Amino acid sequence: MIREPQQERSRTTRRRLVEAAVETIGELGWNGTTVAVIAERAGVSRGAAQHHFPTREDLVAAAVEHVGEIQIVELRARAAELPSGRSRIERAVDMVLNLYSGPMFRAALHLWVAASTDEALRATLVPLEARVGREAHRVTVELLGVDESHPGVRELVQATLDLARGLGLANLLTDDTKRRKQIVAQWARVLEPTLAVAKSQKIERNLDNPENV
Amino acid sequence: MIREPQQERSRTTRRRLVEAAVETIGELGWNGTTVAVIAERAGVSRGAAQHHFPTREDLVAAAVEHVGEIQIVELRARAAELPSGRSRIERAVDMVLNLYSGPMFRAALHLWVAASTDEALRATLVPLEARVGREAHRVTVELLGVDESHPGVRELVQATLDLARGLGLANLLTDDTKRRKQIVAQWARVLEPTLAVAKSQKIERNLDNPENV
Repeated sequence: MIREPQQERSRTTRRRLVEAAVETIGELGWNGTTVAVIAERAGVSRGAAQHHFPTREDLVAAAVEHVGEIQIVELRARAAELPSGRSRIERAVDMVLNLYSGPMFRAALHLWVAASTDEALRATLVPLEARVGREAHRVTVELLGVDESHPGVRELVQATLDLARGLGLANLLTDDTKRRKQIVAQWARVLEPTLAVAKSQKIERNLDNPENV
Repeated sequence: MIREPQQERSRTTRRRLVEAAVETIGELGWNGTTVAVIAERAGVSRGAAQHHFPTREDLVAAAVEHVGEIQIVELRARAAELPSGRSRIERAVDMVLNLYSGPMFRAALHLWVAASTDEALRATLVPLEARVGREAHRVTVELLGVDESHPGVRELVQATLDLARGLGLANLLTDDTKRRKQIVAQWARVLEPTLAVAKSQKIERNLDNPENV
């Protein structure tokens, strides 16, 4: 009975540190990021911070996983609300192409750029990003409601995620919302013919029997 | 007769400084970039460097323009070699989607990310990047040989360039060549039907009269 609240406190501390890490990296970049700075922002003692995360690399690893998980949970929740008919693709493309327009992507960019000249950070990031990327791919397939065994579908899902990151870059220094909206509409229109024939059977079943939706 | 070689020397010095700036930013990031560091790499005295570029922002502005110009000149030269038939789109898409896979994009990324937390750098970069971006768009239209007045073409050209930058990001920490190749092939396949009806008249004329190619 005593251990539970302790574990909870520990979880809360970790979460605070991880969220503070994302904010700090986004605002100060990798050079300005230290465990001490993050601890102060999180309102956690430096000792406690170092108990949870001995190095800033450990904190970054937890931060990347945290951001990845938030995105996946959010997308899954929204995937459940998507219609199964023709309008699904545009709605799904809209979600995916807006995925990287916020402060979390800015923090990720800081890390990627720093890692391009920092071997230790690169060694931490590359396997993590590969895992987060695979998850993002999987959830995008679910969102679109397509079957990847159809030729070309896999590459188009990948291209959609790469485009999303390119649009994230275009939104870094100026507000690119208006232009992005037009690209979303056109991207969905162009993808539709290829993806429509690759609808997953699960979605097809839902179409046949609307009660399952 | 005396002024000519002096002007030439001056041009050479400027070019050396600008090239050294691109390398320095790509390797050391914005934080590690000073006029002194760039001057040393360029083999130019600090005084001469500061005569040409009083601040590192001035050097960066020249570097961004230099990189943009190199890309445009290179693409224009290669555009002239493209066939006018069906294979043009795949070849052109291949060129554009490989545009940001090298060290120049890495330098640009360093600058963009730094500018997201540095107002002075942002003020220098935003108008420059807008100009370079417009030029890249124009030359991509030429490469693809399409007419932008057709509905949807403008957005697809933009999407192709945004996708190219997303692929540049994906190539930052690991070699993404193989995956990118498959995306190029599939994106060209998807673009083809929309762009084929939007062929510019210039290219059409070349098709009708092969001697003009």
